[in-house]
Amino acid sequence: MNIHETDTVSFDRANDALVVIDQTRLPGELVLLSLIDRDAVFEAIRTLRVRGAPAIGVAAAVAVAVLASRRNAPSVPELRAGVREDCAFLASSRPTAVNLFWALSRMEKVLARNFGSVGEAVEALRREAERILAEDIETCRRIGENGLPLLRDGMGVLTHCNAGKLATVRYGTATAPIYLALERGMALRIYADETRPLLQGARLTAFELAAAGADVTLQCDDMAASAMAGGLVDIVVTGADRIAANGDAANKIGTLGLAVMAKHYGIPFYVAAPFSTIDLATPDGSGIVVEQRDASEVTELWYAKRMAPAGVKVRNPAFDVTDHSLIAGIITEKGLARPDYSSSLRALAEA
Amino acid sequence: MNIHETDTVSFDRANDALVVIDQTRLPGELVLLSLIDRDAVFEAIRTLRVRGAPAIGVAAAVAVAVLASRRNAPSVPELRAGVREDCAFLASSRPTAVNLFWALSRMEKVLARNFGSVGEAVEALRREAERILAEDIETCRRIGENGLPLLRDGMGVLTHCNAGKLATVRYGTATAPIYLALERGMALRIYADETRPLLQGARLTAFELAAAGADVTLQCDDMAASAMAGGLVDIVVTGADRIAANGDAANKIGTLGLAVMAKHYGIPFYVAAPFSTIDLATPDGSGIVVEQRDASEVTELWYAKRMAPAGVKVRNPAFDVTDHSLIAGIITEKGLARPDYSSSLRALAEA
Repeated sequence: MNIHETDTVSFDRANDALVVIDQTRLPGELVLLSLIDRDAVFEAIRTLRVRGAPAIGVAAAVAVAVLASRRNAPSVPELRAGVREDCAFLASSRPTAVNLFWALSRMEKVLARNFGSVGEAVEALRREAERILAEDIETCRRIGENGLPLLRDGMGVLTHCNAGKLATVRYGTATAPIYLALERGMALRIYADETRPLLQGARLTAFELAAAGADVTLQCDDMAASAMAGGLVDIVVTGADRIAANGDAANKIGTLGLAVMAKHYGIPFYVAAPFSTIDLATPDGSGIVVEQRDASEVTELWYAKRMAPAGVKVRNPAFDVTDHSLIAGIITEKGLARPDYSSSLRALAEA
Repeated sequence: MNIHETDTVSFDRANDALVVIDQTRLPGELVLLSLIDRDAVFEAIRTLRVRGAPAIGVAAAVAVAVLASRRNAPSVPELRAGVREDCAFLASSRPTAVNLFWALSRMEKVLARNFGSVGEAVEALRREAERILAEDIETCRRIGENGLPLLRDGMGVLTHCNAGKLATVRYGTATAPIYLALERGMALRIYADETRPLLQGARLTAFELAAAGADVTLQCDDMAASAMAGGLVDIVVTGADRIAANGDAANKIGTLGLAVMAKHYGIPFYVAAPFSTIDLATPDGSGIVVEQRDASEVTELWYAKRMAPAGVKVRNPAFDVTDHSLIAGIITEKGLARPDYSSSLRALAEA
């Protein structure tokens, strides 16, 4: 089964379940998880079985609908209280991704409506989750269309982490223009940073691009500067987990360094993200909380033997914040924002 | 046994053997290898059991003496021919490190003398190897003294790969000023990049600095920019494998990116290296051959399971070349070279 024939996140109405591709099993095995309880959903998000800011948002929305239905609440007020509790619990699974909060808040807003019965309320939640899922597919396709004009035949494209199909339902964000370019027969050389510590670039991006027939080359994160200095890279495109009103973009750790290097070598650095990633209420990057993850991800997680001395101190920030001054453009479903982002993002938001 | 009580490379005269710490077994086990044949020495260098440009040079010199003795050559001319063959063979083990060629050429020069017997010639080779070994210890101590004035109490020092004690006989190059600072009671915060693909920073640098009681924090390579942006880093010091006449410095892949990021954040970037690393015959970095290593180092080497799709294309350059314009100073045993390196390096060479 090709990964591109399966959505990353889906809603199995017949079985009242959230279905996700278990990304911790890739690239070795394509395993679908059918999730029906809250702790399992929390665990799947926390341990990155489902990851990527847009996919997390969609998964959380579907989970809220599934959990609401499975509560068998005796009354609408009790259903509302239960759904609010589920939303608060799921919101605590990852602190940086704004799409998670955005999707949960859309689900909570449904609760404000008047319902004649619990069944009617559950159905409204299901429809909202399906809407969020369908919108994600449409949004990514539009990001692809808005980013496509930045690509030219023969270009070298560097990306980091996985802002691919596996980070969304389909198409991806940073990869959406790449997939559209491939469909149109454009020859691109894609360089995928492996992205330590969790190796999403090696396990997921190299995997999904190769599965789509792209010319993809894997490299370690510390090889990016040599690729740029050697003229292999014409454009850098990454995703984002949260973008502040001034364009400062939080994304997977390592993105900031790429942006600095790209600037040094005169290579344009773009961020591709759905508008749900843009947090106009946060004025700049200093207000973005960066998740600190466990030291074992650095010292031993993947290894056949321990690869660092026992008890060593470890820094393991999951994200960094790229200053807006380093970003050539932000590719969204509403269009391509250019500096000054404080005005261009607001203009797109209001368009 | 503390790693600091054992020299990285030594000459066991009693058993006519080259003895090295097997660095592929660290940090788990401290294993000494006693090497007496050419293929084993080649394998030990090629597979990085002994690594670090200065240590490779010393190990090759000792190996030449050991192999010469063990040849039991019937005549001085036959000994000379055999030693030249050994030198040519060992020179092919790693293409980038100039210290290897430098040490081998010093051993070959010994052959030009007049010898009354094979025993006399072998003894001359042994003494030259011992001299190279003793000089390495003295050189590193002086690099430490020349670099120490760059450090201040409370500084954050970022280093990459292992230019430590384990890359030399004792003290290291980039670490020599750090060890001297620790001896004098200076409090430093050291940040060690893990250094993919071979993890020398995690396995070796974090290990040897922790064993010396330093405050060392391990991070993935893609976390360096966030450490710099967060104000944790006051100075970057790395080693070098070859430095061209204009100051362009080849070092472990990832060094170039750090230098670019350090420049962006206004953090001084220094290279510490013995003069044997400086190749005045190579005008600039474009003349430095960068070793390309096996893809499996990136895709599976350390992993309990394969971490990248089968058959994925991989870039795995072992080194990159840092442009001299990004280097604040080159710390050598003869003094601290400052730009313009074309004149400062030559002046130190002639001093």
